[in-house]
Amino acid sequence: MQQQWLTFARSLASQAGDIIRQARANDGFDREFKSGHELVTSTDLAVDKFLVDEISKTYPSHVIFSEESSPATLLDPESDQVVWVIDPIDGTVNFAQGLEHVAVSIGVYQGGQRRVGVVEAPFLHKQYWAAKGQGAFCNDQPLAAASGKALRNAVIATGFPYVRDNLDELLGYVREILTHCQDIRRNGSAALDLCGVAEGVLDGYYESVKPWDMAAGALIATEAGAVVGAFGKQRAEWPLELNGDHLLVVSADLYQSILEILQKCKK
Amino acid sequence: MQQQWLTFARSLASQAGDIIRQARANDGFDREFKSGHELVTSTDLAVDKFLVDEISKTYPSHVIFSEESSPATLLDPESDQVVWVIDPIDGTVNFAQGLEHVAVSIGVYQGGQRRVGVVEAPFLHKQYWAAKGQGAFCNDQPLAAASGKALRNAVIATGFPYVRDNLDELLGYVREILTHCQDIRRNGSAALDLCGVAEGVLDGYYESVKPWDMAAGALIATEAGAVVGAFGKQRAEWPLELNGDHLLVVSADLYQSILEILQKCKK
Repeated sequence: MQQQWLTFARSLASQAGDIIRQARANDGFDREFKSGHELVTSTDLAVDKFLVDEISKTYPSHVIFSEESSPATLLDPESDQVVWVIDPIDGTVNFAQGLEHVAVSIGVYQGGQRRVGVVEAPFLHKQYWAAKGQGAFCNDQPLAAASGKALRNAVIATGFPYVRDNLDELLGYVREILTHCQDIRRNGSAALDLCGVAEGVLDGYYESVKPWDMAAGALIATEAGAVVGAFGKQRAEWPLELNGDHLLVVSADLYQSILEILQKCKK
Repeated sequence: MQQQWLTFARSLASQAGDIIRQARANDGFDREFKSGHELVTSTDLAVDKFLVDEISKTYPSHVIFSEESSPATLLDPESDQVVWVIDPIDGTVNFAQGLEHVAVSIGVYQGGQRRVGVVEAPFLHKQYWAAKGQGAFCNDQPLAAASGKALRNAVIATGFPYVRDNLDELLGYVREILTHCQDIRRNGSAALDLCGVAEGVLDGYYESVKPWDMAAGALIATEAGAVVGAFGKQRAEWPLELNGDHLLVVSADLYQSILEILQKCKK
């Protein structure tokens, strides 16, 4: 089944990417703000509808867990249910700005495991993909996380949430990373940051994100040899493999060092 | 003359971009660290030599002010000398990592004015360019800075210097921007951040940088309608138009608001 899911997810992601490219080319979308600061565009909703419709038609018995249409879905970690975890546009602010770090993220989860992950970057003309146990790829090239880097030369990506009630904590992490590593990157798409670690162009990535931001990218990073873990507490209602609280994804060599740096300043 | 300089600079930048793309394709470069943290690759030096040789051959009477080969050159702001201000690779860390925000920056300065600016992004397949009074372009498309954005929806780019002896100050700015604006971006190339403001995909950019990081991009941003200024003190030995200390470049609507935000936390 895994291979079928992968093929279907890759095709869906590619079609979703076309919708997104077209919307930008025609400037054909409206902007709205959810809870004050959190942007959603009509293209997020259109792509969500497209993905949900197609998945429901092809796999009527599967569950869909989506940022735009079902964010409150509760997942039973004990169940053997197949769950499609989707983010129609990861990097909505970038999409609305005209920036290029924009992605469609489609993950398939079953039985406590990430099974398939596809991250489509329509403006970078890249599709990252992985299936459990079968390696990770960008278009047709196999991916491998970085190795042999010194901590001091590591480039670490991060992000800042829409709700900024813990700025002291966020800035504490930035301070430690800037003190110990080469530099920080802030690209604006969690899914693509995870793929960047998988590709070895980023050495690590940390942020607290939602399941749909990381379900696909975390599998891609793991299959490329990176370590996926957490640098702080994770809420109980999300299964471990879909839990983006205090997400930490780093090349294998540097995982422990970065974990210690972030834990040191965790409040 | 300005038109000749522009044509020559665009051709040089394009050839330099080819050298950079080739070096990455062949993995044909060595890495060295200048003052501890500051990376320079053999490709920085090769591109610098290419640019300096070509400019000297074509304009033997002009001065060259380059990050890699003449960083200590003193410029007399009163002179009518033509000065080529070049950065062979802006975004060297990105280049070495395999990231795509990498640029060649070539500016021409004369008589207290920025006259020509070309920023070539070899991995993004973009060439940004401008000549004084003639508008700014990306490839063949005219550029226009953003307008009509609310401060709260503004996306602001910044960078962090190699030497981090003023982290408190840097983090203070980040805190204020995250408090008042939509988000921060950290792409790793000052020249491309300036072009992003010119293109309207970023609303603003602030950082303390060197003349070769900003000479070309500042003209491109100005010609696209953005405001170029400073949010703090500028050292005396660089002419105003080549001075990157506390550089602030913002779309016209938001310049004053961002200036006040940054000045408020300036120590």
